Amino acid sequence: MALWDLLVTNVHLATMVDGYGELRDGAIAVKDGRIAWLGAAADADRAQAADVRDGAGCWLTPGLIDCHSHIVHAGNRSDEFEARLNGATYEDIARAGGGIMSTVRATRQASDDELLAQSLPRVRSLLAEGVTTLEIKSGYGLSLESEAKMLRVARRIGKELPVNVATTFLGAHALPPEFAGRADDYVAEVCNMIAPLAEQGLADAVDAFCERIGFSREQTEKVFQAAARHGLPVKLHAEQLSDQQGAQLVAQCGGLSADHLEHLTQEGIDAMAKAGTVAVLLPGAYYFLRDTTPPPVAALRAAGVPMAVATDNNPGTSPMASLLLALNMVCTLWRLTPLEALAGATVHAARALGRQDDIGTLEVGKRADFALWNIARPADLSYAFGFNPCRGVIFGGRFV
Amino acid sequence: MALWDLLVTNVHLATMVDGYGELRDGAIAVKDGRIAWLGAAADADRAQAADVRDGAGCWLTPGLIDCHSHIVHAGNRSDEFEARLNGATYEDIARAGGGIMSTVRATRQASDDELLAQSLPRVRSLLAEGVTTLEIKSGYGLSLESEAKMLRVARRIGKELPVNVATTFLGAHALPPEFAGRADDYVAEVCNMIAPLAEQGLADAVDAFCERIGFSREQTEKVFQAAARHGLPVKLHAEQLSDQQGAQLVAQCGGLSADHLEHLTQEGIDAMAKAGTVAVLLPGAYYFLRDTTPPPVAALRAAGVPMAVATDNNPGTSPMASLLLALNMVCTLWRLTPLEALAGATVHAARALGRQDDIGTLEVGKRADFALWNIARPADLSYAFGFNPCRGVIFGGRFV
Ligand SMILES: [Zn+2]
Ligand SMILES: [Zn+2]
Repeated sequence: MALWDLLVTNVHLATMVDGYGELRDGAIAVKDGRIAWLGAAADADRAQAADVRDGAGCWLTPGLIDCHSHIVHAGNRSDEFEARLNGATYEDIARAGGGIMSTVRATRQASDDELLAQSLPRVRSLLAEGVTTLEIKSGYGLSLESEAKMLRVARRIGKELPVNVATTFLGAHALPPEFAGRADDYVAEVCNMIAPLAEQGLADAVDAFCERIGFSREQTEKVFQAAARHGLPVKLHAEQLSDQQGAQLVAQCGGLSADHLEHLTQEGIDAMAKAGTVAVLLPGAYYFLRDTTPPPVAALRAAGVPMAVATDNNPGTSPMASLLLALNMVCTLWRLTPLEALAGATVHAARALGRQDDIGTLEVGKRADFALWNIARPADLSYAFGFNPCRGVIFGGRFV
Repeated sequence: MALWDLLVTNVHLATMVDGYGELRDGAIAVKDGRIAWLGAAADADRAQAADVRDGAGCWLTPGLIDCHSHIVHAGNRSDEFEARLNGATYEDIARAGGGIMSTVRATRQASDDELLAQSLPRVRSLLAEGVTTLEIKSGYGLSLESEAKMLRVARRIGKELPVNVATTFLGAHALPPEFAGRADDYVAEVCNMIAPLAEQGLADAVDAFCERIGFSREQTEKVFQAAARHGLPVKLHAEQLSDQQGAQLVAQCGGLSADHLEHLTQEGIDAMAKAGTVAVLLPGAYYFLRDTTPPPVAALRAAGVPMAVATDNNPGTSPMASLLLALNMVCTLWRLTPLEALAGATVHAARALGRQDDIGTLEVGKRADFALWNIARPADLSYAFGFNPCRGVIFGGRFV
């Protein structure tokens, strides 16, 4: 019996262990969906492998990880986009029933199948770029029934396509109209949703939108306490539009990540560094909203806070379905290095999902989720934009 | 014998005649590679068509036109991109042999076949997004032999792939090292290149880079005079980094387009409006270089200057291989409307190539180059980014 199920030779490996972890002219072997061996191609014992494939000189990296998305939603908001560019104000659009509530209405009305069908093209766009793990948030249902529907659809995506899906319950995303003026009541309701969702195994984590136009730090804390009671890790939309000291809160709670962070303070950075909280950078919304305050990248770097990069795919502020474009944006707009960008979509993104022992690097024992790239060097992945050099994906040890 | 070769039914047409020219629940018929009829699907006489295809409710637009690219080149500059983000100065990079001269060296060294092979993935990226016409400039050869090679490869792309290629001779792109300190001599040499290139049918137009770091207005004028002697239309890289009154020059010469235009003055706009010169907007370089001076879009709009939108695909300042992303960028960064953006990649781009009688709209008699889109409305094409909703391409009346 063969010792390895698969051996891929004639590849340059970027293991993402200690930097790029470049291993040129390498090979990698898989057994039972896990990495069994990696090293110089010349040292690979081909006789041990049931299947030997030639990587044609491609670069092979860990499968990419998009650790922050709202990719399951119904409808789109191109009508508002067009109206705004033709001079409509946000008020005009809100009066016409637009904004996030239009997505909530469409998502509530959609059946599971409709929601899945509308979400799949976006997911496939990511997968074509070598994404093998995708976080998907709820947050457009805003009732137990509709939030559960979103999370069920997210789970189905993970069953129907070659991708590991991590689900996040984001009931505290916006105040639904039926709770207008009663935010605390809605937060209590959100807390009550956690038990049934956790029992059904629908949520891997809990998130909230802590912002003046979202939920307060106190309200967020209540949601986090409910998550803790059910053993769910937390993360937070923090400091996007203003400093709410959300990063400190999520750090104190031992949370996985604080996301956005354009208005993060040094105090927040210190709290994150101490707690090991990942900073998830979301350039799509910054670009699309024409924001001018970048997150404090240099200070995060100096403090040793791991930085992840994600699409934030959502219909209102980041209708972007390319993680490679996000890599270019963090380099172009925020001056991350290409290495930091790629680490942000692999090793650090894995940590943002609490899955650093399982994915994100090429190391023996980790899942055999790989992307193959027709590139000259790893920096090409963030340099070119609107271009996809992915030439193959291996998911759980099998070519997709 | 069938009157039509092909009838596509069950499509929404955006003819791009007078705005979107929306015709919902439409159909379009093709004969001998040209549009023979279009109208309501209910009025289509299916019996007249040799082949009837169901468009599945997609939107059908004119095939997209990328009217400004440097997509034929060898090598890439991700190494410089990475070095700069790691702190190297432009001087460091120039000293290490980087910058445009590294592309010139690689392009000069490449064989025709190598140059084609390196360019094809980028071209395919555009074609997958519904591009059916592509302008390709020379300008990394900077000698008759190497410029001719670039233009031959551009012509081959048009033969090997389903795309109309318009070639542009851009000998006056940069000063080659062998002419250091002798710019006027090089310009004379460029003028001398035009005759043989024109005779071989390799150049459809002539372009120059009129800029402090490129060629002066006087030198540009010499190149334009040589183009006129050989009956070739002109266009210009104008006012990208400073006002050189290039737009006025190209307008006076009855040129096709002035491109970039971040530093265009009202005088230049007036000259363009009077002459009917197209303004080609190139957001990729603006984004990638983190430029902060947008082209005067409102003034161009007010003056009635047609605005086209293109990728400017090139290794130094716009390694972008997505025209749809350019559409989003002109809306997001410069506040064009989605209609202006789409017109900029269809009807106005056709005019920028002098091909407005042949392509760019859905009208009887024009080439049957179409893109089919799985979208809710035309604005979706500029709203989503890093996402390709193209579901099919028809080139010269045939499904690709
Ligand atoms: Zn988000
Ligand atoms: Zn150019």
